[in-house]
Amino acid sequence: MSEKKHFFNAKHVAIVGLGLIGGSMARGINRAGFRGTLVGAVETEADAKRALTLGLVDACHADIATAVADADLVIVAVPPAALATVFDQIAAHAPADAIITDTGSSKQSVVRLAEHHLSQRLVHFVPGHPIAGTENQGLEAGFTTLFDGRRVIVTPTDATGAKALDCVVGLWKELGASVIEMEAARHDEILAATSHLPHVLAYALVDTLATRSERQELFAFAAGGFADFTRIASSDPGLWRDIVVANRAPVLDVLDTYIDNLKHLRAAIDKDDHAAIEAVFKRAKAARDEFNGRPEESTS
Amino acid sequence: MSEKKHFFNAKHVAIVGLGLIGGSMARGINRAGFRGTLVGAVETEADAKRALTLGLVDACHADIATAVADADLVIVAVPPAALATVFDQIAAHAPADAIITDTGSSKQSVVRLAEHHLSQRLVHFVPGHPIAGTENQGLEAGFTTLFDGRRVIVTPTDATGAKALDCVVGLWKELGASVIEMEAARHDEILAATSHLPHVLAYALVDTLATRSERQELFAFAAGGFADFTRIASSDPGLWRDIVVANRAPVLDVLDTYIDNLKHLRAAIDKDDHAAIEAVFKRAKAARDEFNGRPEESTS
Repeated sequence: MSEKKHFFNAKHVAIVGLGLIGGSMARGINRAGFRGTLVGAVETEADAKRALTLGLVDACHADIATAVADADLVIVAVPPAALATVFDQIAAHAPADAIITDTGSSKQSVVRLAEHHLSQRLVHFVPGHPIAGTENQGLEAGFTTLFDGRRVIVTPTDATGAKALDCVVGLWKELGASVIEMEAARHDEILAATSHLPHVLAYALVDTLATRSERQELFAFAAGGFADFTRIASSDPGLWRDIVVANRAPVLDVLDTYIDNLKHLRAAIDKDDHAAIEAVFKRAKAARDEFNGRPEESTS
Repeated sequence: MSEKKHFFNAKHVAIVGLGLIGGSMARGINRAGFRGTLVGAVETEADAKRALTLGLVDACHADIATAVADADLVIVAVPPAALATVFDQIAAHAPADAIITDTGSSKQSVVRLAEHHLSQRLVHFVPGHPIAGTENQGLEAGFTTLFDGRRVIVTPTDATGAKALDCVVGLWKELGASVIEMEAARHDEILAATSHLPHVLAYALVDTLATRSERQELFAFAAGGFADFTRIASSDPGLWRDIVVANRAPVLDVLDTYIDNLKHLRAAIDKDDHAAIEAVFKRAKAARDEFNGRPEESTS
């Protein structure tokens, strides 16, 4: 009840960016029966028209200033490279007490940007990240159920106020997600390991095959496991370059561990050390099966 | 027509091993309307009973000698580690002109084994490998449609006779697959890159996360991409240890290339070299999207 109240207390919600995440949030806010005004900000007038045609928002603008002018809640769902500019626009044009949240995949970099570009508004800012997504992007990529049963991590700073945090937590619950609070640094380590590293590995694998002379033949004989394994290599290259760069230190840390482990495994294969190879494979299978047994994950 | 004839000319088919591959072949042979006798060989009497209950075969034995005694076609669908023993049993007990084929994931090692253990029968031996599978194993893992629209690679040796090759090609076509003939060495390179390497990478990734102290937390926050990426790490560890060891040289070759590429990517991330990172990600996405566009693969 209290979350509902918090969420619907926002009468004017602006979403900057209506791609997979922002577009799914718009759809979810509509599904939740939001009775206030939902405004979108996108890059072009053409996209603004399309967003209206798709019924994502009540109004849509190609400039952020207009979109956020009356907002009491601003959701920033843009690629990492656009964040600084978007924060500047919000700082210049949103009402002084507007609550602001983002959806970025690395949180320490977002907090650093917010400290510079939203400095007067840090009490109203809640860094957030929904652990949900697909490899698709654009206005049509979103869908209402994207966050159902998924987890959202919020990483409030020392400056974040309780009212802003309550509002954003309530929003995500209305969207069907459960919310976990943690330090930004902890978030970045976890995501580096479970999301950013797999993307780097999948891109590197497909690229390894793609740059071989027999590329056509290789892909022709790839089986289902390969298709699953490399699905995430279809994700937006520019976006993922920015995510990896924004979360550089934790990504390098877990990537180094991975490369070390891979070298040990390579040595075991080279030495025909059956026990060492099987030990790695067995530990992995046990962990994967345990992970897969979680009802929430098994359908994803 | 000619393939049909070849296939149904086999009046007595024995399948040694009724796991995912052998069990799916049994189901597919039944679906194809085979009118001869289909016999299975499994490890235990209990499995033999279960195979009969499942309706996989007309008769099932826990000893290979009995199962292959009257066979004119013997399909060997056992893990790599069991091949030598199974070949010895076939050499000792199958009719002298029985056609023999296998389904193993590395072909040079199988050919070497066959040269030692089926030496008098090489004219009747056709090395084969269906590019199809799931992470499941056991008598219940197979299904009728596993090979529909998939590719099967056969790697006949200089000794393989035309009659044996025709029979095995016809068999796979009856099971819904298309058949490609190539050198065993070429097969092993392709599979090392498209199947064995992804398995090694997925096992290493899950193991990297599993051996971290925050394991539970890591897996709790893993999203859908991680689930897809690591599905193949649920595959049988013993089987995949044997596959990787059997195909050691090609696996090490492509693994070394991959580790090199990963190190270059690591350096690019470390140096904040946006262009280099994006170049890799873009090439990979283009190749992946092209691969995914193939109708055959898109549903797998």
